[in-house]
Amino acid sequence: MGKNNNSNFNNILNVIKIGGSIANDPESLDEFLENFVRLNQTKILVHGGGNAASDLSKKLGIPINMVQGRRVTDEPSLDVAVMVYAGLINKNIVAQLQALSCNALGLTGADLNSIPAQKRNHPEVDYGFVGEVEPDDINTHFITQLLDEGIVPVFPAITHDGNGQLFNTNADTIAASLAVAFSSHYDTKLTYCFEKTGVLKDVENEDSRIPKLTKQDFTAMKENKTIYEGMIPKLETGFEALQRNVQQVWIKHARNLTNDTGTKLSL
Amino acid sequence: MGKNNNSNFNNILNVIKIGGSIANDPESLDEFLENFVRLNQTKILVHGGGNAASDLSKKLGIPINMVQGRRVTDEPSLDVAVMVYAGLINKNIVAQLQALSCNALGLTGADLNSIPAQKRNHPEVDYGFVGEVEPDDINTHFITQLLDEGIVPVFPAITHDGNGQLFNTNADTIAASLAVAFSSHYDTKLTYCFEKTGVLKDVENEDSRIPKLTKQDFTAMKENKTIYEGMIPKLETGFEALQRNVQQVWIKHARNLTNDTGTKLSL
Repeated sequence: MGKNNNSNFNNILNVIKIGGSIANDPESLDEFLENFVRLNQTKILVHGGGNAASDLSKKLGIPINMVQGRRVTDEPSLDVAVMVYAGLINKNIVAQLQALSCNALGLTGADLNSIPAQKRNHPEVDYGFVGEVEPDDINTHFITQLLDEGIVPVFPAITHDGNGQLFNTNADTIAASLAVAFSSHYDTKLTYCFEKTGVLKDVENEDSRIPKLTKQDFTAMKENKTIYEGMIPKLETGFEALQRNVQQVWIKHARNLTNDTGTKLSL
Repeated sequence: MGKNNNSNFNNILNVIKIGGSIANDPESLDEFLENFVRLNQTKILVHGGGNAASDLSKKLGIPINMVQGRRVTDEPSLDVAVMVYAGLINKNIVAQLQALSCNALGLTGADLNSIPAQKRNHPEVDYGFVGEVEPDDINTHFITQLLDEGIVPVFPAITHDGNGQLFNTNADTIAASLAVAFSSHYDTKLTYCFEKTGVLKDVENEDSRIPKLTKQDFTAMKENKTIYEGMIPKLETGFEALQRNVQQVWIKHARNLTNDTGTKLSL
């Protein structure tokens, strides 16, 4: 469906992702949720869970399963991820949003079959119960109806395979996939909120924020190692979203959600 | 709104509750879910969690907090209940229903503000984070829209107070409250599924099932102690639902969901 044929043309849809460092810190989360509610546009929240699942695994004595230096999601680790992300963190965020008069609804990829996924296929490593998402597979039908009713979907990073198996999935990828999937219905704006003001030239210096980052700059910064390990896949996902018709991609501090301080990606 | 003014008049809504002994046993759960999907009527599933939360609390070394002989839901116990009921059990049920082509959606009382609750108020015991539900407070608006779309809501026994606080809540009460709340929109049928064929005259003898239990019989059986402790609140909740316009209330074995073997309550 072309954008011009849709009644939501010119409507903005915000897909906002918060990482575990915000989701797990009550003060940061409160501040973020107040800003999120203030954002008076159609919106979807995606949240990671960060260390909360590892902490619970540790308490339960579940060993971290590594294969060829990579972490594997075995069954006990998946159960912990589902409990922490889809249970504890998701439901507390939903309850807090409801307290702020925001009509939130927590949805894993299994709920309404909203985000079907495929088990990650790697030639050498079996990552276990980890799902990969393809934007074209996202079921936008019911989510669009919810958005039209003013409902705010809140997604933890849990998907399913359609055959009864839940998956742990990267939250950045879920957010980007949702933004891409809805780009034919809305002008989508993807925002990654984290604990820094944006992409920094010098990671030690918050004043070195790059207001606008082109794909070319990014490639150069990867080569000269100005950009660190964890930021690389996030930015790659962001640039891919831009290439797939997402209108705007931002990397921001959570507290700057409603203003233009951050790093805006550009092709 | 009177039943006659509603487009769903004469439509049946099934509110079906399964206990922890079914939800925690993969084989019983599979059998139940297949029967549940086969039931070709509008339906809502409510599930308990049974011992799964206590088991996790034990593994985590969270002590069971008792006050005046009553179990209290303190903060760590609530977190465990949310993780196990709203996370692990709920999302696995939803994924399994989706695998059976049933468009399930997991909803706590916080999601869509569907089931607001009040902290249990007791003159002597503070039960902690335990919520009481009043059918009139249930927000039927969005749930009705979901049901009209063929979506099947799946409720764990978690509610909220509207101010950001989640509550542990009795699953039998949630099921009865949903049935009562929807009785002005639908002909509601409330079914409690458990591991026996119905209410038994002799708890040791499965052949002693009482096909039809009147309120008067129930009172007599309470007096002569034929009915045991755990069954009493369940039946009281069931009779109250009948008094509040629920059309049918059944106590059944999960495997008899789609037939008439069970105990039918009657005023």
